[in-house]
Amino acid sequence: MSFTVETVKEARERIRDYVTETPLLRMEVLDEFLGCQVYLKLENMQKIGAFKFRGAMNKIQKLTEEELACGIVAASSGNHGKAIAYGAKMKGAKATIIMPNTAPKMKVEAIKALGAEVISCDAAERFEVAAKVCEEKGSTMVPPYDDYDVMAGQGTLGLEIMEQCPEVDTVIVPASGGGLIGGVSTAIKGVDENVKVYGAEPSVLPRYSVSLEKGEPTMVPMPEVKSVADALVSNRPGLKCFPVVRDHVDGFAAVDDTYMLKAMKMLLMEGKILAEPSSCIGMGAVLQGLISVSPEEKVCFVISGGNLGFDQLELLGGVNY
Amino acid sequence: MSFTVETVKEARERIRDYVTETPLLRMEVLDEFLGCQVYLKLENMQKIGAFKFRGAMNKIQKLTEEELACGIVAASSGNHGKAIAYGAKMKGAKATIIMPNTAPKMKVEAIKALGAEVISCDAAERFEVAAKVCEEKGSTMVPPYDDYDVMAGQGTLGLEIMEQCPEVDTVIVPASGGGLIGGVSTAIKGVDENVKVYGAEPSVLPRYSVSLEKGEPTMVPMPEVKSVADALVSNRPGLKCFPVVRDHVDGFAAVDDTYMLKAMKMLLMEGKILAEPSSCIGMGAVLQGLISVSPEEKVCFVISGGNLGFDQLELLGGVNY
Repeated sequence: MSFTVETVKEARERIRDYVTETPLLRMEVLDEFLGCQVYLKLENMQKIGAFKFRGAMNKIQKLTEEELACGIVAASSGNHGKAIAYGAKMKGAKATIIMPNTAPKMKVEAIKALGAEVISCDAAERFEVAAKVCEEKGSTMVPPYDDYDVMAGQGTLGLEIMEQCPEVDTVIVPASGGGLIGGVSTAIKGVDENVKVYGAEPSVLPRYSVSLEKGEPTMVPMPEVKSVADALVSNRPGLKCFPVVRDHVDGFAAVDDTYMLKAMKMLLMEGKILAEPSSCIGMGAVLQGLISVSPEEKVCFVISGGNLGFDQLELLGGVNY
Repeated sequence: MSFTVETVKEARERIRDYVTETPLLRMEVLDEFLGCQVYLKLENMQKIGAFKFRGAMNKIQKLTEEELACGIVAASSGNHGKAIAYGAKMKGAKATIIMPNTAPKMKVEAIKALGAEVISCDAAERFEVAAKVCEEKGSTMVPPYDDYDVMAGQGTLGLEIMEQCPEVDTVIVPASGGGLIGGVSTAIKGVDENVKVYGAEPSVLPRYSVSLEKGEPTMVPMPEVKSVADALVSNRPGLKCFPVVRDHVDGFAAVDDTYMLKAMKMLLMEGKILAEPSSCIGMGAVLQGLISVSPEEKVCFVISGGNLGFDQLELLGGVNY
């Protein structure tokens, strides 16, 4: 498989009629806080509130009529599940989302409201259950990140960045398994190899920092205390994502929760933008001093999603930036 | 005084180098909630976090070197005071802001941080104190709305709307004394007389609804319980604003606090945008059914400001939309 900017461009044509071209805003008011010229790619304003819809839709668009008729399956309690449910609905296909029986009722109801069937099971058994559904019904399972079509779909937001802000110097991307940063970095370097691309991951789950150091995809231990970055929970890079990321990304920062929350509160109170804690990790990396930027540098932060409950704003009480 | 779209265009040239051209976003995710095609003019991303900077800067730009040297005065504990302080700083002039001694310490410190002098006094005496400062020092007092230069400055955001979204059908503007809606309606009707412009004001302070009914600027009683719209507190239309608004605005809605808060929470949780309660009043008017819109109608809501403390988010606890 040769995964290049052309793969991403093809994905873009495939999903163009379904996906929102999200705003990229110059956000001067944050310059003094972050020490650079701040641009935000607002993927929290994507359909379903997160970038995951791009990859899901690219995968779904590649299915034949026959495959669509057999349904689509995803194992996810988060944005990936929502994205598959929404994309399937758009194509008139049936989605089955496998969710852990510990998932909050609100999330289950949100998925059901999109017309999907929800199967609850023990978290540890979710992939087994998903495989069983696929076997029984001939449905297609869509993985959350370790897949070239998914990666290509996510990468389309990189192409948009390069069109909306061709003068950008640096792009900072939240990272987990590597679907988003794999696609985005490939797209950006394919358009302009001089643009720097950095990844930001939680310091308690530094799967890319560790794997790049070792030179191979490496599993890191699950932390005892979970990070607030509840969308960045992979403990190993995707096997397809890893070489793509390795070849295109200039570096990784492993960011502490404290700095994600500072960034989230700053983005909300100064920038007037609500984002998930996970999505603020790039700004957190700069606030923590892990990625060096300069006052004239045009830095685009990918704000990858905005799905959180009102109660989660309590996280920001007492946080200073 | 002939106040026309040309007056607003002149203001625009005068303040162009100082003011941010704020984003106008198509916000599809809110369509189903509001029953129309939703566009947002994000003046909460203006310098100082509110539209007030436009009018203040237009006034300041018209001052001579000599006048600037004598300083600028404003009586305001809110966005107008911040706007004057910031504008004065940009021009190297001294600002004196008269604030009621009941103003929260945070607001006083914010104004001081912009380099302004703050004089605290009894709220009832604030205009007297301001007049005294002007007399002693020869400073220029800038009124918050009842002034053609201020109105023209605010109107520049209407010109931006017509450039950023020339296909707009309807614009809904928060209203208090009438500086914003006077300027914006003049600009919009001057560019395209077919665009409808509506004002939205708190139902407990319906100064325009009452005054337009009576045919003259009319004082309405101050409510016993204050509205959450703490930036829309005038109890009478500005005398200069009234005829301008009367001649250009298609109608007013008097909106209940409940609907402002529903709109504010919806804008935050679905649209991912933080705005002041006052700024959500236009969306509140539609939610309350006071302004009729249709699914194909392109409706631009002016989100006039975003200055609020984190604690004020408590207002949204328990609010459903």
